[in-house]
Amino acid sequence: MKAARWYGRKDIRIEDVPEPVPGENEVLVEVEWCGICGSDLHEYLTGPIAIPRADAPHPLTKSTPPVTMGHEFCGTVLKVPSGSKLQPGQPVVADPRLYCRSCHVCTTTRDTNGCARYGFLGLSGGGGGGLSSLVAVDERMLYTLPNDSLLETAAVVEPLAVAWHGMRGAEMTNIPDKSILILGGGPIGIAMIHVLRANGAKKIYVSEPTVQRRAQTEKIADVVIDPKTQKVVEKCMELTEGKGIDVVFDCAGVTPAMMDGMMSLRMKGTYMNVAGWETPFTPHFGLFMIKELTIRASLAYNDDDFRETVAAFCEGKFKGVENMITSRIPLQDVVGRGIEELINNKEGQVKILVSPRK
Amino acid sequence: MKAARWYGRKDIRIEDVPEPVPGENEVLVEVEWCGICGSDLHEYLTGPIAIPRADAPHPLTKSTPPVTMGHEFCGTVLKVPSGSKLQPGQPVVADPRLYCRSCHVCTTTRDTNGCARYGFLGLSGGGGGGLSSLVAVDERMLYTLPNDSLLETAAVVEPLAVAWHGMRGAEMTNIPDKSILILGGGPIGIAMIHVLRANGAKKIYVSEPTVQRRAQTEKIADVVIDPKTQKVVEKCMELTEGKGIDVVFDCAGVTPAMMDGMMSLRMKGTYMNVAGWETPFTPHFGLFMIKELTIRASLAYNDDDFRETVAAFCEGKFKGVENMITSRIPLQDVVGRGIEELINNKEGQVKILVSPRK
Repeated sequence: MKAARWYGRKDIRIEDVPEPVPGENEVLVEVEWCGICGSDLHEYLTGPIAIPRADAPHPLTKSTPPVTMGHEFCGTVLKVPSGSKLQPGQPVVADPRLYCRSCHVCTTTRDTNGCARYGFLGLSGGGGGGLSSLVAVDERMLYTLPNDSLLETAAVVEPLAVAWHGMRGAEMTNIPDKSILILGGGPIGIAMIHVLRANGAKKIYVSEPTVQRRAQTEKIADVVIDPKTQKVVEKCMELTEGKGIDVVFDCAGVTPAMMDGMMSLRMKGTYMNVAGWETPFTPHFGLFMIKELTIRASLAYNDDDFRETVAAFCEGKFKGVENMITSRIPLQDVVGRGIEELINNKEGQVKILVSPRK
Repeated sequence: MKAARWYGRKDIRIEDVPEPVPGENEVLVEVEWCGICGSDLHEYLTGPIAIPRADAPHPLTKSTPPVTMGHEFCGTVLKVPSGSKLQPGQPVVADPRLYCRSCHVCTTTRDTNGCARYGFLGLSGGGGGGLSSLVAVDERMLYTLPNDSLLETAAVVEPLAVAWHGMRGAEMTNIPDKSILILGGGPIGIAMIHVLRANGAKKIYVSEPTVQRRAQTEKIADVVIDPKTQKVVEKCMELTEGKGIDVVFDCAGVTPAMMDGMMSLRMKGTYMNVAGWETPFTPHFGLFMIKELTIRASLAYNDDDFRETVAAFCEGKFKGVENMITSRIPLQDVVGRGIEELINNKEGQVKILVSPRK
């Protein structure tokens, strides 16, 4: 079968690989669509980051590069292990995480995203990745969808789960009353809007500098601010009648946005970082102390987040989420019309889905 | 009367000033002892920080330099306003904060330390400061002590309240079960130990590089680690059976200590910063994200903290707190044997008290 495999920086190859052989408790899934994630772009440009290094096999999969890419995927059950609750033909979406189920974190908490041996299908090797026809997935990590038509958009469940975990981590109570500023209207920023809206948020403000992404976010957020032409802090103070923002979600990962966010926050406000940062993460010390801000981090998601996100997705709670998908391409084009396109055309693209079947 | 007044960097003068005239609701307090705070050292070396600038009078006091220093003070009531609940001769300790009682934060929250017009007696002008014979203090900010003998140590209530607020801000539940690492065994680190112990903590670990301060903290902490000769992270992992520390209190404000703290924290641990930082505050991004750390800030204290700290102090819950006081000097020596001594002899000094009466 064809697979997109990471060999090194700027070296992802589409090549023939053997079909994965499902292990015990593993289901063979035929991939329908797989999204390209921001972290895939980071791996392409500056990896290996989450991908194991040649001299350090992943502790769970024992894999080293090349590894098959793609961790935002949905598809159809092709083959099940004996005693499985699943049946061939069922539409499913995969929680692509790998965790050990035996360390202190895995056995005593719900925070399996903090497993010391944490990994991902589509980054860490093992059963493969979504940028190929077939993947072997631990049955416990598959969630069934009520009908096949949901497969058209279910690849975005994964970034929605990232946002869901960010919302959970912010420990918000009384969400409809909370004023929320999202920094960055890219895929995670947009997922953040959907998740917050699905959970009752009514004051969702977004700061986004690019025209296209602003146009996308304007359809679903309450107010969208252009930080290049508008004063974000003044606008937020106006929107909150001088009180300041309750919770900032950083989906941008750049210092000027962070400054706007910290200046806009109220006394004891929460700054939740969901972004990857390529520069040092240096909160403004004076603002941090004088306002006694709480700075939190959110990385991926746990089982609860994924399950709840799938449920909300199946109930149609993410209205218009299909608009996130700005392009659909065949596997053979994944580098040029997928990864390179996302790097070079941030203005025009949000989420690109890839099909290994086309 | 004599007062120590800040004129500029390295320019604090002992000079004769008029006695303060108490305003409405203000009590005239005769100062018994006043502590020298780390922030006084910062003002001496690099101020004005909290002290108003010559071109920007403090919004509440309208004062500009020179200002009388000293905000950690206790004393005796000398003169009360009509209708006062206090009586001349009563021993009192002062919450030296100034806040407007009219802004959004003051009127709708308990977070009066976040008042936009926040200030301090002893830094912001107004009724004076503890480094003088007499101070005029808003009656609402005075707490009576049950007997005169407590005046010998009550000046340390203020730094204890700083620690109390830090503990409150960390939102710890089930304190006896929590593993705690305090970075830095200076005045605030020691106050942190006392406050945590008074609230039931049983696993208090301290990292402190200097011999003298380690000797001080060893009397009251459970384990004291020398980061220059011991591996703090390994030791913390050993002490927590591999789980990692629940809460770090940063009372040091330096990057190597922060790295030790963040590496020692468990998944989803709390990093509470109580320290002032002179270098950029740059948490290690990988540790912050992978462990989903919560980074919090604690600045001064609010009314609840001060009231509860005074109550605990009067109940004798800070056992051995008098050992914090390493020197007592007369007002005329405040620069040489006080401020300069604390700057140059960190090894030998923790808290120096000053008496304007000696």
